[in-house]
Amino acid sequence: MTGDVFAKVRAYESYAFRRQLEAQRLLPYFRAMQGPPSAVTVIGGAPRVNLGSSNYLGLSGDERLTAAAHQATLRYGTSTNGSRLMNGTTDLHLRVEETVADWFGEEDALVFGSGYAANLGVIGALVGGGDVAVCDAGDHASILDGAKLARGRLLAFRHNRMDRLETLLRRAADTEGGTLVVVDTVYSMQGDLSDIVAITGLSRRYGARLLVDEAHAVGVLGPDGQGIGALAGLADAVDLRMGTFSKALGGGGGFVTGPADVIDFLRVQARSFMFTAAAPVGGIGAALAGMEIVRSAEGEERRERLAANTALLRNGLTELGFDIAPAPVWADGKQVQTPILRVPAPDDLAAARMWKLLYDQGVYVNVALYPAVPRGQAQLRVSVMATHTEEHLDRVVDAFAVVARKQARRPAADLVVGSASRP
Amino acid sequence: MTGDVFAKVRAYESYAFRRQLEAQRLLPYFRAMQGPPSAVTVIGGAPRVNLGSSNYLGLSGDERLTAAAHQATLRYGTSTNGSRLMNGTTDLHLRVEETVADWFGEEDALVFGSGYAANLGVIGALVGGGDVAVCDAGDHASILDGAKLARGRLLAFRHNRMDRLETLLRRAADTEGGTLVVVDTVYSMQGDLSDIVAITGLSRRYGARLLVDEAHAVGVLGPDGQGIGALAGLADAVDLRMGTFSKALGGGGGFVTGPADVIDFLRVQARSFMFTAAAPVGGIGAALAGMEIVRSAEGEERRERLAANTALLRNGLTELGFDIAPAPVWADGKQVQTPILRVPAPDDLAAARMWKLLYDQGVYVNVALYPAVPRGQAQLRVSVMATHTEEHLDRVVDAFAVVARKQARRPAADLVVGSASRP
Repeated sequence: MTGDVFAKVRAYESYAFRRQLEAQRLLPYFRAMQGPPSAVTVIGGAPRVNLGSSNYLGLSGDERLTAAAHQATLRYGTSTNGSRLMNGTTDLHLRVEETVADWFGEEDALVFGSGYAANLGVIGALVGGGDVAVCDAGDHASILDGAKLARGRLLAFRHNRMDRLETLLRRAADTEGGTLVVVDTVYSMQGDLSDIVAITGLSRRYGARLLVDEAHAVGVLGPDGQGIGALAGLADAVDLRMGTFSKALGGGGGFVTGPADVIDFLRVQARSFMFTAAAPVGGIGAALAGMEIVRSAEGEERRERLAANTALLRNGLTELGFDIAPAPVWADGKQVQTPILRVPAPDDLAAARMWKLLYDQGVYVNVALYPAVPRGQAQLRVSVMATHTEEHLDRVVDAFAVVARKQARRPAADLVVGSASRP
Repeated sequence: MTGDVFAKVRAYESYAFRRQLEAQRLLPYFRAMQGPPSAVTVIGGAPRVNLGSSNYLGLSGDERLTAAAHQATLRYGTSTNGSRLMNGTTDLHLRVEETVADWFGEEDALVFGSGYAANLGVIGALVGGGDVAVCDAGDHASILDGAKLARGRLLAFRHNRMDRLETLLRRAADTEGGTLVVVDTVYSMQGDLSDIVAITGLSRRYGARLLVDEAHAVGVLGPDGQGIGALAGLADAVDLRMGTFSKALGGGGGFVTGPADVIDFLRVQARSFMFTAAAPVGGIGAALAGMEIVRSAEGEERRERLAANTALLRNGLTELGFDIAPAPVWADGKQVQTPILRVPAPDDLAAARMWKLLYDQGVYVNVALYPAVPRGQAQLRVSVMATHTEEHLDRVVDAFAVVARKQARRPAADLVVGSASRP
């Protein structure tokens, strides 16, 4: 007799741990928001300084974006009701695609329903049978899923290890098919950068194409918020750039931009683009308004405030003794303040306790446990907004100070396992 | 030296044909809409009777849904700015999930960013290593992609052939893992039904679980628009039901509903749910308003009008000599008017010509060529709305009459290939 695919629903690895966290009211996931993801958000019934959102520039909920979303919905309906091919293409989709291509100085762009769908579709279409996708093991899940869904092979190298990348490129070059290198430019959990200079150099040397995921960089870093490819002056050396509207740009959907013939190919071959409803117009309408702001002087000001806020919080947490990585330093000697700070935790339960202590003090951060991060690398993920005030950040540092004092008082082992029944 | 993953972008199978259609202004894809997908939509600069949208009940653009989308966006922001786990869960997401579960009489439900994402995530999470996904070869692309992405094996049976399904179930039962059968209830291209009575029976007999995709049935068919599972009185025999908000419900996003423990598992294991931004609130806010209408007396009226419109058009096209399949007949002897009619075309070029002839007369339909349909099964896909008036449908039949006369005048071979250079 066959087994039961439902047998696993109570038998997966972290099931018991999740139940334990729930029983102790420590579960850091699925906390309901009662408002927009602003600098201070009502979460679980109380206002909390929100350091758990990718609303980096504070544009989600901005009244200009809200108005743009409403206008788009009034004009084109609440549902696109079909795929882009069949009946889901509106003038707005075309305008957004032109705007993205213009912004990035590329020939063309394609809008997907989400960033996840963009990676899935682009990689799935480009990496055919006999081809190879070479990915950083720390790449976003959507990249790895895209490579798994593709007919070609997936080779993953250890996070940010350029020697390993070169080994894989050498191996891939022995095959008849082509190679697509795919990396994040800013890694979402640690906020570290990929070595884009080395990666473009290696990709060229071994005849590979390069797709970069700028999801956490667009709007935030680089000239006009174009991201790391442009910051490095290497936009031309990057074949395809992918990003999302649902982070700094304050909207919904994802995109890829690059040469016209490649985009044209993706338009009729990327399955996650063809076989799904067109991106909802409210989200891309908001993104269009968001891009206008991001590319303006106001966008530059918001980026500067964001970088200043990140530096302030980074220093504050470091002074409290937390082991925060320094901001990456660019070739020109300047620091790149990615808006994501990693606060390491002794282990999963300790991370949940740290999270709860902050939560109860009105500070909301994210917790990343396996599989969002590698095993044994539990962390708090702290993300900053341009719209946080100094007063907000002072409150955050004060709350972390309480965490630091508790950690200092308790032996690490106690924080980790022994105190499950304590209040 | 390695090949080039971009080599394929001008070298895929239908590239030349697509260019040919473009040169002749016959390409039936990516026509831009200048308004909502209403019964009559401005497409390519002119109003056309829209028979190419899944806005079956006419709810996309309904002012109640537009208002609901706007209220949701005002309240929760233009972007969810993060995953459901981390920071993307709002009260609205929870309310929509409660509403779906209540509507379907299930214990719980989960909202995804799209129907595509729902199938991908659910199948990917449930069909583990050693398990088997048994799919109809005519299943929607998202089901087949989900099964490909899953660690288990994909076995596909010939469309609607229950003897083949049984063969595969018997083979799957020999393995140690579990089996998940996945079928559409209404097939999107032909509008035909799966034999849900036989499929539930076989699934039970061989110890397999059953997931049905009700994307084209929710809101449209069955008691309270619950779809085919409920229409057949077999909701209890179906383990999981999946649907989308972006068709009859007039919003955006997708969902799955079923037992609480399975939904709870999917909440922390379905990758397309965990590693992507939460479903935009505008789309699910509209869907909530859409569900209220769909479940009301007004919803019943709209379903009746839709069925009457479909019957009217089916008869009109059949009388013109088009080979339209009759409406499926249910066990009780009643016809089930799925709102999708397949009009066969001699071949791909002929389909494009038929499409253009209709388009120029102010009638918009969809064209399905390979790979949306199997090779050699080119067709027009005609989908009806509750909001089409008799006058609209009369115009449609008149336009099809012109197509029929042209077809009768020309030898089929001439329609097919010989006349590429004619105007």
